[in-house]
Amino acid sequence: MAVRAAVAGASGYAGGELLRLLVAHPGVEIGALTGNTNAGQRLGALQPHLLPLAGRVLEPTTVEVLARDHDVVFLALPHGQSAAVAEQLGDEVLVVDMGADFRLKDAGDWERFYGSPHAGTWPYGLPELPGGRAALEGSKRIAVPGCYPTAVSLALFPAYESGIAEPEAVIVAASGTSGAGKAPKPHLLGSEVMGSMSPYGVGGGHRHTPEMIQNLSAAAGEPVTVSFTPTLAPMARGILATCSAKAKPGVGAEAVRAAYQKAFADEPFVHLLPEGQWPATASVYGSNAVQIQVAYDESAHRIVVVAAIDNLTKGTAGAAVQSMNIALGLDETTGLTTIGVAP
Amino acid sequence: MAVRAAVAGASGYAGGELLRLLVAHPGVEIGALTGNTNAGQRLGALQPHLLPLAGRVLEPTTVEVLARDHDVVFLALPHGQSAAVAEQLGDEVLVVDMGADFRLKDAGDWERFYGSPHAGTWPYGLPELPGGRAALEGSKRIAVPGCYPTAVSLALFPAYESGIAEPEAVIVAASGTSGAGKAPKPHLLGSEVMGSMSPYGVGGGHRHTPEMIQNLSAAAGEPVTVSFTPTLAPMARGILATCSAKAKPGVGAEAVRAAYQKAFADEPFVHLLPEGQWPATASVYGSNAVQIQVAYDESAHRIVVVAAIDNLTKGTAGAAVQSMNIALGLDETTGLTTIGVAP
Amino acid sequence: MAVRAAVAGASGYAGGELLRLLVAHPGVEIGALTGNTNAGQRLGALQPHLLPLAGRVLEPTTVEVLARDHDVVFLALPHGQSAAVAEQLGDEVLVVDMGADFRLKDAGDWERFYGSPHAGTWPYGLPELPGGRAALEGSKRIAVPGCYPTAVSLALFPAYESGIAEPEAVIVAASGTSGAGKAPKPHLLGSEVMGSMSPYGVGGGHRHTPEMIQNLSAAAGEPVTVSFTPTLAPMARGILATCSAKAKPGVGAEAVRAAYQKAFADEPFVHLLPEGQWPATASVYGSNAVQIQVAYDESAHRIVVVAAIDNLTKGTAGAAVQSMNIALGLDETTGLTTIGVAP
Amino acid sequence: MAVRAAVAGASGYAGGELLRLLVAHPGVEIGALTGNTNAGQRLGALQPHLLPLAGRVLEPTTVEVLARDHDVVFLALPHGQSAAVAEQLGDEVLVVDMGADFRLKDAGDWERFYGSPHAGTWPYGLPELPGGRAALEGSKRIAVPGCYPTAVSLALFPAYESGIAEPEAVIVAASGTSGAGKAPKPHLLGSEVMGSMSPYGVGGGHRHTPEMIQNLSAAAGEPVTVSFTPTLAPMARGILATCSAKAKPGVGAEAVRAAYQKAFADEPFVHLLPEGQWPATASVYGSNAVQIQVAYDESAHRIVVVAAIDNLTKGTAGAAVQSMNIALGLDETTGLTTIGVAP
Repeated sequence: MAVRAAVAGASGYAGGELLRLLVAHPGVEIGALTGNTNAGQRLGALQPHLLPLAGRVLEPTTVEVLARDHDVVFLALPHGQSAAVAEQLGDEVLVVDMGADFRLKDAGDWERFYGSPHAGTWPYGLPELPGGRAALEGSKRIAVPGCYPTAVSLALFPAYESGIAEPEAVIVAASGTSGAGKAPKPHLLGSEVMGSMSPYGVGGGHRHTPEMIQNLSAAAGEPVTVSFTPTLAPMARGILATCSAKAKPGVGAEAVRAAYQKAFADEPFVHLLPEGQWPATASVYGSNAVQIQVAYDESAHRIVVVAAIDNLTKGTAGAAVQSMNIALGLDETTGLTTIGVAP
Repeated sequence: MAVRAAVAGASGYAGGELLRLLVAHPGVEIGALTGNTNAGQRLGALQPHLLPLAGRVLEPTTVEVLARDHDVVFLALPHGQSAAVAEQLGDEVLVVDMGADFRLKDAGDWERFYGSPHAGTWPYGLPELPGGRAALEGSKRIAVPGCYPTAVSLALFPAYESGIAEPEAVIVAASGTSGAGKAPKPHLLGSEVMGSMSPYGVGGGHRHTPEMIQNLSAAAGEPVTVSFTPTLAPMARGILATCSAKAKPGVGAEAVRAAYQKAFADEPFVHLLPEGQWPATASVYGSNAVQIQVAYDESAHRIVVVAAIDNLTKGTAGAAVQSMNIALGLDETTGLTTIGVAP
Repeated sequence: MAVRAAVAGASGYAGGELLRLLVAHPGVEIGALTGNTNAGQRLGALQPHLLPLAGRVLEPTTVEVLARDHDVVFLALPHGQSAAVAEQLGDEVLVVDMGADFRLKDAGDWERFYGSPHAGTWPYGLPELPGGRAALEGSKRIAVPGCYPTAVSLALFPAYESGIAEPEAVIVAASGTSGAGKAPKPHLLGSEVMGSMSPYGVGGGHRHTPEMIQNLSAAAGEPVTVSFTPTLAPMARGILATCSAKAKPGVGAEAVRAAYQKAFADEPFVHLLPEGQWPATASVYGSNAVQIQVAYDESAHRIVVVAAIDNLTKGTAGAAVQSMNIALGLDETTGLTTIGVAP
Repeated sequence: MAVRAAVAGASGYAGGELLRLLVAHPGVEIGALTGNTNAGQRLGALQPHLLPLAGRVLEPTTVEVLARDHDVVFLALPHGQSAAVAEQLGDEVLVVDMGADFRLKDAGDWERFYGSPHAGTWPYGLPELPGGRAALEGSKRIAVPGCYPTAVSLALFPAYESGIAEPEAVIVAASGTSGAGKAPKPHLLGSEVMGSMSPYGVGGGHRHTPEMIQNLSAAAGEPVTVSFTPTLAPMARGILATCSAKAKPGVGAEAVRAAYQKAFADEPFVHLLPEGQWPATASVYGSNAVQIQVAYDESAHRIVVVAAIDNLTKGTAGAAVQSMNIALGLDETTGLTTIGVAP
């Protein structure tokens, strides 16, 4: 029997992608859709690509609406708004938070990067991490990872878990503009974005940095520093994360490849590409797949890993569905594809 | 029980899109995949987005391979090559030609535009046209329409069938570059295409023109002339067709809208948008849906219709699957979605 | 000696493009730069590509500032705001309005499309039209044409002036997003625009329509109807206008080509391309050139003309400079290039 | 009196960009234009944006043609072809090689990365490097740097020259597709490139790596290792290079900024942006400017520098003109702009 799911924040990009997946999910029935300023509007006017739901009308985002007869509640709300809603939803409802509120373990990190009191820590929706699936099985609360930390953690945890990398990671990632959301801002206009690459948050300020440090340090068993530079690329979707770290003394190409083959051998969504083939965000467009390639640069003695994901799918809504599947005891891949829409 | 399908021309864009759909089709099992110059290569190197098929190796495009234990054979071959293959495949095999060979009824038109002998005419894979479904039911041969004629015929047949339009259609359509195929040519390089709009085949020379004339004249019951200008747009997928014709004397806005509401009332894939909302190719990205809007321009006394499709899905591979479903007696929508991948 | 020029509205796209041209103009010295909400900000933060002016600070848009010691005042203001400013600037100052306020001759057209009282009509800044240059010589007021009317009028006036076309024009034009300005709106976000084509203002509602009718009717010597459909293309700059009209009886390919060769034989910025070559917006990127090609479609008996311009250059700021040159008695091409930035 | 310049390889992207600049250069008269397979064709068909040269016909690339009455010969030829031409041109002709042949000092590096005998080393056309201008003054031979090494060397030499960075640089750069040239290859098709980011040459294999090492080691006075990952971005032009290195012990934010302010204080083309503003490739589109920003990441103790250039202008043809100006004793900025074409 299908579980009934509500989506709070159905008019944004994360909510829209989630609905795209949930319509196709055989075990889910779509319940309430809510919005704030958009409450009362037809979804067809807000998300014109979701034709089967075009006639649905958004309700206001209230606990009354969300608590009403749902087995799962997805929260696609601005950062800092999930806690107030979640605490009023009963323990028997599965709550999946697609915001940042419950990702970080360290309250100090939260307060430093988000400037508000820490709400707590929920089981983390990245099943591919060591121990990741066990933490999600049967859970009633899930914190969906950030899009950049998803790509970066998958790219680098094998190197740290296997002990082949020095604990200083350097990451440069390019993201499509949908990662910046749907609120109109001048620098996100098509006229500004098309034909242009630009960085932002250079020098350590991006809010996703502590989440990367948390995941990589856990894999390494020691503190890992992260130099992270995000860039905005002229495309709507996709993250390409180029990650590197010095190899530990004596580590060479074979050990590097072996670590990655072992880490992803049984993963349904992570594909370590054959040597000589490189990830491309187009290949995972709209899919929950992750393409990874790893190289050992002998002259710089560095391990270089490149990962491609769709920031809205594996980076957000796909991870939410994958984690929900695990929490509910469904097949982890239900309703998710590894086929991208290309070219 | 699943039907077993072969795909000839699996390395091109049409073949790739077809495989994307067939993998998700619950009634189809994928059989042989063939190529010409690419025979012997892994599909993963040619279509890196089709991860579940990455390990499949292309066989040569021969009748032996295609005839081997398949219920359906899809031909995604260059124009003019399908006839020789098709005639050697038995009558019990469903052959779906995604090329142009069997679309035109008039041998003279074929010869004038393609410069080779006419191979014949097969049932036409556009079920939404008047009488379209009946022609496909139980058929063992299907000619998939061209991508532009699909958008244009759907946009204008209601006006002609209902007798509200004069028989002189003016069409300007923008297509994504995938419509031009995967063979590398200088004018299709990303460097040339990005940031640029350009026309081609202006003045009546495009090969899709006689196919449009054929469909619209059939709907009108009289000869319709077509002025067609295709343009290349800086996007990978999508067709936006802007079509207009003078309204017949006395026809006004109400009659125009009524004709379109009637034509598409029960169509699963064609969505006449609410007034004030306009089609966008992004909304049908990767989907089999068609978005249509119609307006009556009082000052010019013209009916203006705009249609958006994905040229590779509803414009090619989706139409192939939809028509196959009808021919095989399956639900017409099996394996097809009306949800686009957006933003 | 250089003329001193003020630019009101220096933070928008039209103002930015104008400054790009004026910096390179040997006969112009840049005076005051003004803005409204942006007054007090460094231009470098608003127009980061205008490096030589990065340190300039915007002043408020007041008559005091604009009247102060300038020979030319360019107004790049929202529609409806130019008249109030212009009437307070003396007759000895050349005022070039880049908005719509003074383009239309018919007050009723203005009021119907813009909903405010008509401010008047100024000499029209499209020198290539019949009599266009004479109207600008020595003038102290110039109304810069709209971007779409520029492309469409240049594409079709030769057909109407030479009497070869029926007075019913059908136009579909694709524009880059900069034509919609810099004010952030959801449908102009990069995420929405990239990979998508969509129409707007279908059915006669676009404000540029009466301007086209005005120009084409003047060329024809009889009223011309215009069916105009604008579309938004995934590129920052450029307009590709596809324009057609039925040929008058007896008109054929030779007469069509002859009309266009005659019209543009001596034009420095309009290039009728050799037969077989098609305009592309990339070819005129950042330039004041216009690329035009014309074809006669025998089967539909229509004249089809395609024009490519840069909407910000020849479509706005380049036309302003070209017209200023004529008004001031400078060489018409001073400070303007016919070379596009490509690829 | 103008110098007379020949361009060998006028049909490619580097040659086209060079011609765009030379047409506007007041001290240059354009002489012979040559091509190989394109000899005999009109330039208008090959470079449709170069309207003033549309009627010029390409001659074959022979020493006879190039030696004929030219003061400067620009070579925009495939790697490895310049030496044979250059040695036949007299010492009185200024030869500017836009290929790689004469960039590297170490013959072993050349042979390892290019697989052919080393032709020699010419004065290097990056005037902003320490001692860069002196090497070019009066020279009759110039090796134009590679596009990536230009961005990377300008981004990092101040850190190495001033002794604040450890000698291990990590670089991730995104390039527009024009950097890959005009020869049509499947992975460079618009359909493949649009909407996609992908890396190539990961792990040390890119031919531009030894050139970076050469420049950075010279600035540092000690060997610097370089981990370089190039990525292909969905845009025609532009390089965004994100470069970082550990800061030496005790180095902090102030020392970092001071080093960069000092290095670029008097540079006409390199703009160190105000704090809080980030480079964007759109801002330098078609210009010879370089935008640079630097940050000190305290938690990772790294210096992070981001540079934006236009790969075809400052990255190739603009550098050629700038260096030619110096060699000929002209003002270094003649014929070059620091204004980008944006948006």
